[in-house]
Order: sequence, then C-alpha cells, then structure tokens
Amino acid sequence: MNLSISSVSSLRTVLADLPGPDAAAQALWAAREPQLTKPGGSLGRLEELSSWLCAWQGCHPPRLERPVARVYAGNHGVAALGVSAFPAEVTVQMVANFQRGGAAINQLCGAFGVQLEVLSLDLDRPTADFTQAPAMDEAEFVAAVQAGMDSVPADADLLVIGEMGIGNTTPAAAVSCALFGGEAADWTGRGTGVEGGALARKIQVVAEGVARHGGQSALDILRCLGGRELAAMAGAVLAARLRRVPVLLDGYVTTAAVAALAVERPGALDHCMVGHVSVEPGHRRLIERLGKAALLDLGMRLGEGSGAAVAVGLVRAAVACHTGMATFAEAGVSDAGEK
Amino acid sequence: MNLSISSVSSLRTVLADLPGPDAAAQALWAAREPQLTKPGGSLGRLEELSSWLCAWQGCHPPRLERPVARVYAGNHGVAALGVSAFPAEVTVQMVANFQRGGAAINQLCGAFGVQLEVLSLDLDRPTADFTQAPAMDEAEFVAAVQAGMDSVPADADLLVIGEMGIGNTTPAAAVSCALFGGEAADWTGRGTGVEGGALARKIQVVAEGVARHGGQSALDILRCLGGRELAAMAGAVLAARLRRVPVLLDGYVTTAAVAALAVERPGALDHCMVGHVSVEPGHRRLIERLGKAALLDLGMRLGEGSGAAVAVGLVRAAVACHTGMATFAEAGVSDAGEK
Repeated sequence: MNLSISSVSSLRTVLADLPGPDAAAQALWAAREPQLTKPGGSLGRLEELSSWLCAWQGCHPPRLERPVARVYAGNHGVAALGVSAFPAEVTVQMVANFQRGGAAINQLCGAFGVQLEVLSLDLDRPTADFTQAPAMDEAEFVAAVQAGMDSVPADADLLVIGEMGIGNTTPAAAVSCALFGGEAADWTGRGTGVEGGALARKIQVVAEGVARHGGQSALDILRCLGGRELAAMAGAVLAARLRRVPVLLDGYVTTAAVAALAVERPGALDHCMVGHVSVEPGHRRLIERLGKAALLDLGMRLGEGSGAAVAVGLVRAAVACHTGMATFAEAGVSDAGEK
Repeated sequence: MNLSISSVSSLRTVLADLPGPDAAAQALWAAREPQLTKPGGSLGRLEELSSWLCAWQGCHPPRLERPVARVYAGNHGVAALGVSAFPAEVTVQMVANFQRGGAAINQLCGAFGVQLEVLSLDLDRPTADFTQAPAMDEAEFVAAVQAGMDSVPADADLLVIGEMGIGNTTPAAAVSCALFGGEAADWTGRGTGVEGGALARKIQVVAEGVARHGGQSALDILRCLGGRELAAMAGAVLAARLRRVPVLLDGYVTTAAVAALAVERPGALDHCMVGHVSVEPGHRRLIERLGKAALLDLGMRLGEGSGAAVAVGLVRAAVACHTGMATFAEAGVSDAGEK
C-alpha cells in the first residue's frame, strides 16, 4: 500500500476515512475465549489485549511474529532556552548509542524479540523556537509525517513507537496544553530532571508557545508546537491503522504527538494502547483525556519507546494464553456451575 | 543445603535466623547503575528489580538463567460448604491440565522461559473443614511445609510460586483476617465467581473459622485455617530465602500463605516481590499490610502463579537493562549537567 500525503489538507483527508476493527476476527476471539480452562474474565487485561490484537490485525488467532519498534529522533529550537538537564548534542550521541546497541531500548527490544530501527529526522536542523515562530512550516511538517508513515512495515504485527529528542517534553507539554486546555503548569513536568528556576522557565516557554500558536486546528497545533519526531510518530500511527498494525504507545511525548490525531478525528487512536504511564504528570492527564488506561505503571520516565517495549511482554503473554490454552472440553475440566 | 523441620517449633527456629541482603552485591549494582546511558532513576521499578535481584541472589551482575515456577495444589474441607463456583474435582482436573501443558500458567511460563513443576499435596485427602476443627494437625502441616521447602532447586535464580485449590480463597481470607484483624467481609471476595447468597455463605464460613482459630501464633493460624498448598508455599518461600533465590509472589492465596511468616518474623518476606495485585479485594489490603507494592495491576484473578509469571517479563527487562546497557563513557554520551 502506497501512502502519500502532500499537505495538511491531504493528511486530513486520510484521517477522515480510517478502517474500523475487524468484527469477524473479534467474533472468532469471543467464541474461543470462554472455552479456555479458566474462570471467565480471570486473565483481565491479557484478554483485552488478545481481543484488541484480533480486532486491529484483522485476523484470528492473533499473531506476534514480527513486532517492530521505531524510535524517531529530532532536535528542538526550544532546547536552546534551557528546558532540559542535558545538552542538545545528546540527541545525536544517543542515536549513535541506539545504533551500537547500548541504550535501554536495545536491551528491551532484545529481551522481547522486537526488531528495532531508529530514524533521525534532520538532527542538524532543529525546529524553530516556537516562542518566536511555528516550529515547522507546512513542507517540513508534511515531510516528517511522511517519514513516519514510510517507516511502518506492512508485514509488522505490532508497532512500538518511541522517541529521542533533548528538550522534547517541552513541545509535548505545549501540544497537550493547546489541544486540551488548562494551565501550562498542569502539563509541564521535570522531564529528564529540570528543577527550580529551570522548571519555572520551562513552564514559561510552554505558556508562551501556547499563547502564540493555540486556537488552531489540532494538526496545525502539532506543526507549530511539536517537532519532527512528534510529526513522524503521528504519521506512523496513521500508517499503522491503514496497514492493520496495532500500536503500543510509549510515554508523554509519544502520546502528545498522536493525541492531535484523536482530537482531529475521534477514534483515530482506537488501534493504540498505552504501554506505560510516565512519571511525567502530564502523561497521566493526557491518557485520561484520550479515554485510555496504561498497561504498566513502573515509575519509568525515559522515553525511547522503553515503556511500550516492556509492554510487549504483556502482549506475548496474552497471545500465548489465547492461542495455547486447552479448552474445557479438550482438558476434561468441569466448567463453573457443573456441580 | 539440607533443610528439614520436624515441628512448628523447629520451623520457628529456622525463621529466627534468616540471612539478609548481600551488601557487596548491592554496592556493585549501585556503582554501575548511575553510569548507564539514561537519566538517573528513569527506569523506575526496573532499577528496583535489578537491585533486588543482586541483594537476594547475592551476586552482581544479576542473573536470570534458571527461573522456575512451582504450583502447589491442595483440596479443602470448606469446599464442601459451597464457597466456590467450581466443584472440588476441578483441582485434580486442573493438575492434569497443567501436566499436559494446557493451562494459562503453562503458556505464561513458556512465554518467559520459566521451568514449571506442579506439586499435588494429597488431593484425595482434603484438609478438615476449619469451621469444625483445625484444617491440619501438626504432622500434616509440617509435612506440607517440608514438601514446599524440598521443591525449591538450589540452582534456581528466581522462584515464582502459585497455587491451585478449589475453594482456597476462603482459607486465604480466613488466614488474612486472623493475622491482621478486621471483619470477615473485608477480606472475603468473589474468588472464581461466587455471588449473592454464596458470597454471604463464604463470608460466614470465614467468620466462623476466625472465631474458632484466631488468637494463636501466626504459624498456628496458617495450620488451622490454611491448607496444604498454603503451608507448602510458606515452606518454599523460607527455603528460597536460605538458598538465596528471590521470589515473585502471585495472588491472594499465595500472599496470605506467606504473610504468616512476616507476622511471625518481620522481614521474612524481604526477598519477595508481589508480581500482580489481584482483583480479589483482600489482596490489595494484604499487600498494604505487608508494606509491599505489586509490580502489575492487570485485573487478573486466576491464581496458578499466573500474575507472578507475567512479572517475570519485567525481571527479564530489568536484568537486560542493567547488564547490557552502555555507560556514558563507553558510548561517548554527555551526562546531565555537562553543558
């Protein structure tokens, strides 16, 4: 399937016509699950996960043979304003670390059998400082969205998305605040570790960005307050929907990036689950606004797709149970009520 | 190491002299962790897990080469009182299902590389109905504890414990209520699915048991209100401590079984983490009383060790990150503050 957009308007056209869940696969799931040798519902969210996979992969039994992770890296004009505890050159250094296999996401993908690729998005060309101008013009934004769309393999059966970009909890906070309202301070957290005066400055930067660029369409908010890696993640999630690949979202930056799709088109994230709720306070708020519930709450706040990658273990568990368990009839086990 | 007990008193003697965490291994963990290419603390509970493994395995780096699961099965006199939605013969049927590989725990152990064994504890001889007499006499109790102790391989590096026993959330509730006080209704839940009149009867059974056997030592409470699989789990956790095997506890029945050790000897469960908090409301209450925090909250309520087995995925993730990540120096990544 060739997916191509040329403008914000053509992106909006794609968003208006998204496929829904596969009812036939869901029905096959629902016919098998109650026959398995356990009290009905006793596997909790593992049951939800296997049903969700069927619905969005469009097949039963659910598969987990080719899970992939894509990590998008970008640099940000606002990083020069001192909103991060790390210097901006760490983005490119960490990309090199990903490529040599030394980062947390490499170990996590290895542990759960996930194929990882990292996409660098013009790291030598940070987006504009959004307190002064739109972070991206339309051509830059569309190119980043397209790069994200192109990064999703059609034969993947699960997509983990994550990001790396020094300073990018600031655009995440600005996008979230502009999309959902409230005060900048409600959406702005410590990120990798800013405190005191630096945190106050970060809140001020977010407030200035929202004052300048709020009140536009959700996609224009993402363009003016986001960054290339955020735009790419929105593109990846959209392509995944069209290619029938369920998505595990990672932390605050990832969720903020794709929230614009849901504001623009309700239901656009129905094929996505949130892998982990970040310590970053805006993430919990954002997940609630999207009507979702994170699978894990382990106090992580790293990004890189790390929380979503850990959640792949839960998806493995869910697939193993639904596909591998014996039925009551096969096992000769008495069902509830058969006394 | 030959571990053998002959009486409740000799069990108490073993409990009085437990090894503590390994400070040298913890120090090695603490020296390496801050050097890894991530903001300090950003892996949250994954960092806690790798540190905990070092402390209780007594080695650094932490290992996860031989994780084992042991599922203990028992039958209960109180099952005849209608406290479960399933008939008592399901215990033996499910043991057969475990042995053929058809249950949830088989799939989960397969997914996370955990070696599984099931121990049947005199299934043809249910414990006594505790509303009428002690569930076990001292010889029966000691034999079950010993069976649990004997089931822990000295070369394991992680132990998952779980159980199967129709009706056994009733002894779990009775043991918890007798150990920690409060009303029977506070500790009694729907188990595999009892409702209405059956739930009221279950609460009444718990209250009668606590009235008859409460006010004794914690170990005698476990003997009089527990069951063979509960006693065996207490024995397994004790043997694991002595053999330096960290333990992942499963749900309500498992936690209630080993809570008696902590009441008898504070700190006796320091080498244990709770894998998953059950939907069964008494479990959350019990975890709080023990000062612990469950790793997962996925709405599961199956038993069999299933919640703890899913948490093995988190331990895999933790070990992979601590052992496999590059340091800032190795990766040439600037640390926080190096601007």
